[in-house]
Amino acid sequence: MCYLCAMSKCTPSPTLSKNDEKLIRSLALKKYRDSENLFIIEGEKSVDEALASRLEVVRHYRLSDIGPEAMKRISQLTTPSPALAVIRKPAAVTPSLPPSGVSIALDSVRDPGNLGTIIRLCDWFGIDHIFASEDTVDAYNPKTVQASMGAILRRQVTYTDLCALADSCTSAGIPVYGTFLNGENIHRRTLNRERCLIVMGSESFGISQKLAEKVTDRLYIPPFPEGSLTSESLNVAIATAILCYEIRRS
Amino acid sequence: MCYLCAMSKCTPSPTLSKNDEKLIRSLALKKYRDSENLFIIEGEKSVDEALASRLEVVRHYRLSDIGPEAMKRISQLTTPSPALAVIRKPAAVTPSLPPSGVSIALDSVRDPGNLGTIIRLCDWFGIDHIFASEDTVDAYNPKTVQASMGAILRRQVTYTDLCALADSCTSAGIPVYGTFLNGENIHRRTLNRERCLIVMGSESFGISQKLAEKVTDRLYIPPFPEGSLTSESLNVAIATAILCYEIRRS
Repeated sequence: MCYLCAMSKCTPSPTLSKNDEKLIRSLALKKYRDSENLFIIEGEKSVDEALASRLEVVRHYRLSDIGPEAMKRISQLTTPSPALAVIRKPAAVTPSLPPSGVSIALDSVRDPGNLGTIIRLCDWFGIDHIFASEDTVDAYNPKTVQASMGAILRRQVTYTDLCALADSCTSAGIPVYGTFLNGENIHRRTLNRERCLIVMGSESFGISQKLAEKVTDRLYIPPFPEGSLTSESLNVAIATAILCYEIRRS
Repeated sequence: MCYLCAMSKCTPSPTLSKNDEKLIRSLALKKYRDSENLFIIEGEKSVDEALASRLEVVRHYRLSDIGPEAMKRISQLTTPSPALAVIRKPAAVTPSLPPSGVSIALDSVRDPGNLGTIIRLCDWFGIDHIFASEDTVDAYNPKTVQASMGAILRRQVTYTDLCALADSCTSAGIPVYGTFLNGENIHRRTLNRERCLIVMGSESFGISQKLAEKVTDRLYIPPFPEGSLTSESLNVAIATAILCYEIRRS
């Protein structure tokens, strides 16, 4: 029995029909997430958060209701969790350009775990908008949802042309920050903490050349000691976290 | 043909014997990495770095030599890379206690990707020592090696009793930092940037109670705006990065 049944938005599903199973399994693929306008979230805490959120939970399943075999068939995790929910994607809210506040723009981020971690930290640091290039991994990819640890319930990713986005900022005098190996030491720069666009590049290639030309302020997170260059770079989620932390420091 | 064959330490392997294949596949498991004292690294760049490092490369294979089928059989990656090396684990160097400089202590970090990302960022920020509890994931786990992006070739993880480590610091007057939801805003604290121990907790449970009692300075990375608590926490690698960045800021 589902202890949240009393909630109006909750559709408890004590059994799993063949059709539901087929639908849920199909949601591993972006094609079906797009056509059905649904995504899945797993984990007891995340499912409870989804039920308490403004999003529509279409179905949810508890291990205690459907049993371990059925849960294993619908789970995207190596070790299935005790709860899974099917959620209606929220209506896309597209920010007007230039965006207000502090925005992140992700250029070709391909790893779903990295994207989820970035959504989670943008939620923590109250980043106002998350933009991504069209070739960035889908925010509703099960691995992204998992890594976001519930933040996907509160945050949207707007997929758009990042060059046009950067142009809209530049025209309005809003700085476009990006990190480069030949950028300026971030500790020596005064950043615009009220309004800016922070561009982050892909895991393999960094910021694409076309977009790099739109960056107005080239920054650099220095290694320690400065000038030592053992590692070549930081993971994209780590670099994003450091920039967000720096921007939000009081 | 291997273009690095001229190097004395390089043992080019144009073919893959059944025995080698069996050995390499076994190295996916810690049991065999321990008994053979070997680990594998994948990726052209990492393999080249391994060959140029002080570590002993026992074997290495190029896609162009052994072909895609053989590479697929020995690779731990979903998409096999063009190169794989079998490397002798370096002799363990155990730092004397209390440790010098800035050290990280990882308490029950279970996700291999998180550990690899932490090794990579500790390399970037020149963290002097990386300690881990005995139940932390193995630093030579293939996923950890992969996420470290070559940093595992330069950095060692010392598995030890973290309570004894923390005690050694406290006795010597070295602060033991840890992050807690009820800790003090990190922006309002003066940190010892010369010598300290930074304790990071597990993905699921944070810092274990026994170790938490050894923390001398309870810190907190504030969300923005401060006081807002939408997310419950940051990913352990993200939190580690922020503490390292803060400690190393000039």
